[in-house]
Amino acid sequence: MKNVTIRDIANELGISIATVSRVLNDSGYASKEVKEQVFSMAEKLRYQPNAVARSLKNHRTNTIGIIIPDISNPYFMTISKGIEDSVREYGYHLIFMSGNENPVKEKKMLQVLIEKRVDALVLATSGKNEDVIRNIKESGVPIVLIDRKLREDSLGLDLVVEDNIKGAYDLTNYLLERGHHRIGVINGSLEVSTGFERYEGFRKAIHEKGLEANPELIFNGNFTKEDGINAVDYFLNLQNKPSAILSFNNTMAFGAIIQLTKNGYSVPHDMVVASFGEVEAAQILKPSSIITIKQSPYEMGLRAGEILLEHLLDNAKELGKTIFDPHLSISE
Amino acid sequence: MKNVTIRDIANELGISIATVSRVLNDSGYASKEVKEQVFSMAEKLRYQPNAVARSLKNHRTNTIGIIIPDISNPYFMTISKGIEDSVREYGYHLIFMSGNENPVKEKKMLQVLIEKRVDALVLATSGKNEDVIRNIKESGVPIVLIDRKLREDSLGLDLVVEDNIKGAYDLTNYLLERGHHRIGVINGSLEVSTGFERYEGFRKAIHEKGLEANPELIFNGNFTKEDGINAVDYFLNLQNKPSAILSFNNTMAFGAIIQLTKNGYSVPHDMVVASFGEVEAAQILKPSSIITIKQSPYEMGLRAGEILLEHLLDNAKELGKTIFDPHLSISE
Repeated sequence: MKNVTIRDIANELGISIATVSRVLNDSGYASKEVKEQVFSMAEKLRYQPNAVARSLKNHRTNTIGIIIPDISNPYFMTISKGIEDSVREYGYHLIFMSGNENPVKEKKMLQVLIEKRVDALVLATSGKNEDVIRNIKESGVPIVLIDRKLREDSLGLDLVVEDNIKGAYDLTNYLLERGHHRIGVINGSLEVSTGFERYEGFRKAIHEKGLEANPELIFNGNFTKEDGINAVDYFLNLQNKPSAILSFNNTMAFGAIIQLTKNGYSVPHDMVVASFGEVEAAQILKPSSIITIKQSPYEMGLRAGEILLEHLLDNAKELGKTIFDPHLSISE
Repeated sequence: MKNVTIRDIANELGISIATVSRVLNDSGYASKEVKEQVFSMAEKLRYQPNAVARSLKNHRTNTIGIIIPDISNPYFMTISKGIEDSVREYGYHLIFMSGNENPVKEKKMLQVLIEKRVDALVLATSGKNEDVIRNIKESGVPIVLIDRKLREDSLGLDLVVEDNIKGAYDLTNYLLERGHHRIGVINGSLEVSTGFERYEGFRKAIHEKGLEANPELIFNGNFTKEDGINAVDYFLNLQNKPSAILSFNNTMAFGAIIQLTKNGYSVPHDMVVASFGEVEAAQILKPSSIITIKQSPYEMGLRAGEILLEHLLDNAKELGKTIFDPHLSISE
């Protein structure tokens, strides 16, 4: 008799294996209705949790390597939580290395994790490592790119990303519509897709209003808190200061708010701040203090985990791109 | 002719190899004077950076495993930065796994990293794994405990910790002297040394004032943000609310401030908050909004890295305990 797996339950119900896994592991994030469906299907198919353990025999090391550019950024840690919740029932553990927004370091990290024989990789790239990534893929180790694409889309890799152009476009439009025409922009690295696409979204929005990007108001950073601090120092020293600051990730926005506070600026009263990505710390300011594009890191992580499982358990070929839609969050 | 290493430079000058490493790598944290001494000694000894690379041949994998209870806590990431700055010149890379304040998970993580053949381990333990840790030590893999001791001190392991009793004692006294006699305490896990020692420091301080701990005002958490949130919900529902909240780590304090803000409480006007450990987010509140015990995570990480290098390069036996002194930070 064939062993029944949670995959069979998922297929019968037409829902994802991650959802089934969450219900059976009681790790939350499922509606009452779905829970009931899962439990009754498990009973109907005579599902035995041990079948999963048996299916693990073929795994080599049960570890998945995660390389993220900033290991202390809550955004990337929420992605990781999603991955972990997807793969936990299958006995996989996550190993983290930090790329530090440094392509040279990231290349070394990729080599180390391959030497450590991880079964699969999830990478939020710091850029420039197309060759190494292609070699890994060709060697048969599944690799999912998360949050950030490669410059060359041709690699046919699995991607889980967000629509950064749309998100930045919406965020910029919101500021423009409220009369902000001097917007101080804090860019992330233009070497990585999230950085250049968000700047692209900004430019698209201002061009539609017949405006041009003002080089004086563009600060190019690298996604770190220090960049946000330095950007504010720069903007506050301009003769003609911006009326709003637009940061293209959460940690730079956090740095910006720290430095505005230090300089006696109250947000949003003295300076409006808009952030691509939620700033956890802003919860201790008054509600609606900053304007935010909400991202979906947990759901992105779940999806990346599902893709890995398809590769590891079913030898699936690449599954293509999943694009999440970020949305503007204002609670006035 | 013998290869000159940075160890030779350190020995000649009577300073630590970590300091020499930082100077030669230009990664900051050294005085001008020390820098000049290092550079002139390097020239005198005809130091060639490549000698270091040659000394690496004997390393097995060049990786150091780090297990910390909360990978997104800035405190532990600053410790990790210190470790990395110590060992970088020796070609070591850090691999992280998250213990999630869960001894069962931590045990598995320890096994996985040993299977991955890391050369050494740094562990901020979630508790209860004395046996596994003893086995690792006996198998010859250097292991340094950081931030948290084991219950049994007899293991003779290397420790880099803080004087938690003194820190919590000082913090409590500061509140008592300002007239706070109803202090709501948010404990971390009493299964780990930082948790029970800090509570011990609190009890020592109130006993000296002839007071007793009031069970109604003690909330036992597990060092997470959610614990801080739940503790505030609990305290605000008491008929006789506390006048100050004392949290025994930074993330619980952050959670507490979030939940106080959500309930319309302004810190410190409506509720005084004291935290063992700096709350990064508090930088966006007004200065001196919270009372803090400052820790030394970067220096602790440097020291742990130095101890590892002594083991890995010199086969040193255990080097004993390093205790850092936390200090009260008030800027009124």
